[in-house]
Amino acid sequence: MSLLVTGTIGIDDVATPTSEAKQVLGGSCMYFSAAASFYGPVRIVAVVGEDFPPHFRESFTRFPGVDLTGLETRKGGKTFRWGCKYHANMNSRDTTFTELGVIGEAPAKVPAAYADSKFLFLANSPPAVQMGFIDQSPKRVLTVADTMDLWINIAKDDLVALLKRVDGLVLNFDEAELLTGKANPITAGRHILDMGPRFVVVKKGEHGCLLIHRDGICSLPAYPTEKVVDPTGCGDTFAGGVMGFVSTDQSTQHDPGSFSSIRKALVHGTIVASYTIEAFSLDRLKEIKRADLDKRYAEYASMVRI
Amino acid sequence: MSLLVTGTIGIDDVATPTSEAKQVLGGSCMYFSAAASFYGPVRIVAVVGEDFPPHFRESFTRFPGVDLTGLETRKGGKTFRWGCKYHANMNSRDTTFTELGVIGEAPAKVPAAYADSKFLFLANSPPAVQMGFIDQSPKRVLTVADTMDLWINIAKDDLVALLKRVDGLVLNFDEAELLTGKANPITAGRHILDMGPRFVVVKKGEHGCLLIHRDGICSLPAYPTEKVVDPTGCGDTFAGGVMGFVSTDQSTQHDPGSFSSIRKALVHGTIVASYTIEAFSLDRLKEIKRADLDKRYAEYASMVRI
Repeated sequence: MSLLVTGTIGIDDVATPTSEAKQVLGGSCMYFSAAASFYGPVRIVAVVGEDFPPHFRESFTRFPGVDLTGLETRKGGKTFRWGCKYHANMNSRDTTFTELGVIGEAPAKVPAAYADSKFLFLANSPPAVQMGFIDQSPKRVLTVADTMDLWINIAKDDLVALLKRVDGLVLNFDEAELLTGKANPITAGRHILDMGPRFVVVKKGEHGCLLIHRDGICSLPAYPTEKVVDPTGCGDTFAGGVMGFVSTDQSTQHDPGSFSSIRKALVHGTIVASYTIEAFSLDRLKEIKRADLDKRYAEYASMVRI
Repeated sequence: MSLLVTGTIGIDDVATPTSEAKQVLGGSCMYFSAAASFYGPVRIVAVVGEDFPPHFRESFTRFPGVDLTGLETRKGGKTFRWGCKYHANMNSRDTTFTELGVIGEAPAKVPAAYADSKFLFLANSPPAVQMGFIDQSPKRVLTVADTMDLWINIAKDDLVALLKRVDGLVLNFDEAELLTGKANPITAGRHILDMGPRFVVVKKGEHGCLLIHRDGICSLPAYPTEKVVDPTGCGDTFAGGVMGFVSTDQSTQHDPGSFSSIRKALVHGTIVASYTIEAFSLDRLKEIKRADLDKRYAEYASMVRI
């Protein structure tokens, strides 16, 4: 089934307590699509500037499922750049700089060839922009959005409007608390369900995730790992694994947003994110195949089996 | 099989952001033994003062599996008293006062009738005192200890000596980090295994727990709950459920400290702790039966099933 993702593609500088990476490929759309491509084809709608390095574009070839038809290179534009520095515990970070470039201009358009997309993932963007992509996807059957504290703080009305139009929301625990004023993640999730979505996935980083769905609750630990190099992109690849799975799994196509479908999908998201964290940028994902995900899936299943 | 627990019995004042309880029954030994008694008999070795209220002693009758032979009432002594105040997120707290009373004097002795105890849980105490209980338990087959930041800071040599003599250690994540200097819980756990134990259980509160065993790793989320009244005693009842299970489960008696035995036991600990948090002191545990634990076990299993 046709999966479309909108979001950022950028150039990142990332510093951790033990190492750093400068001018590496990043952005939510890039991370998401690489992860989703392990499961099936994924269409991206994103914009970069003329300065976008050719070797970054070539690195997409490592993920042949990624369809670049919707990747716009804007004339005279600058690619989005972002830097961050992780704190000692690797669980939190400070943004060191943001150069919006083309991200601060008009968003990319959904190409006509993508108009039949059935699965839509709206990576973090201004909620008004996310709604524009919904308007351009008339055939959508499952729409899931991410968001961030910035939009909760400065565009809450738009976000509330967006929530009435999505099936699912994926966000970090502190964002869920900020959005609802509720410190308990289940309570916060229920409040978000009251705002529209059928399900909410609360991401807790190294502590796993919580699914609050109208039809049930599910809790999953993260894959227990000692190899933590760079958490950047884990949330986006988590979402990519989730949506890659739901857009291709035959057993849940009758209702891909059902509790059982999303619950299964969360495990796939957990596994692909566990690879992302093992290196900077997409370096680790470039090295693996679907068979590696399946192998770790089995290992994870044995670790969390009760 | 015979389970013995040593630790504190005290009178607590607990304040949370929304309510408070004054002069309620508390202490690690009390919480542990109440939880373990859902699984089978449990012997306590603890000391209280002459001021220990009779109605507190009577509340043990609600947990008929608890054997009070080893509960010493010390003449002229004062019962241990402790107060705490939880922070807004309920994940951390400050101690508001500590009156050691009889806890600061000579520890209770293991009665002759308990000399055949096979399962030993050493709730948080000075490591030297914990070692004294090991010396008094010649028939032990599985010894598990808890500890706290205080002993890591002021009695580390004793703690290191203790670790050579226990099969398992149960501690909070921040304590594991303090003890080992390792921020990754698995890495910290492996370091502790190198110090002696066969397994380490790293408790993460609302985020569940992690088992690092010489024969494998297991990660479990907490029971997802919105009913958080008072986290006091959750760690002790968690341990009580774990030890209650391993001391009575017939399927693992050939090797109760095995990876599969402890993994199963952690689920029981998780479930009994999820009741503890629903009220102050032992108030919620007093209301439930083993059948309630089994029912929630099944519910939890469906929430974490993958």
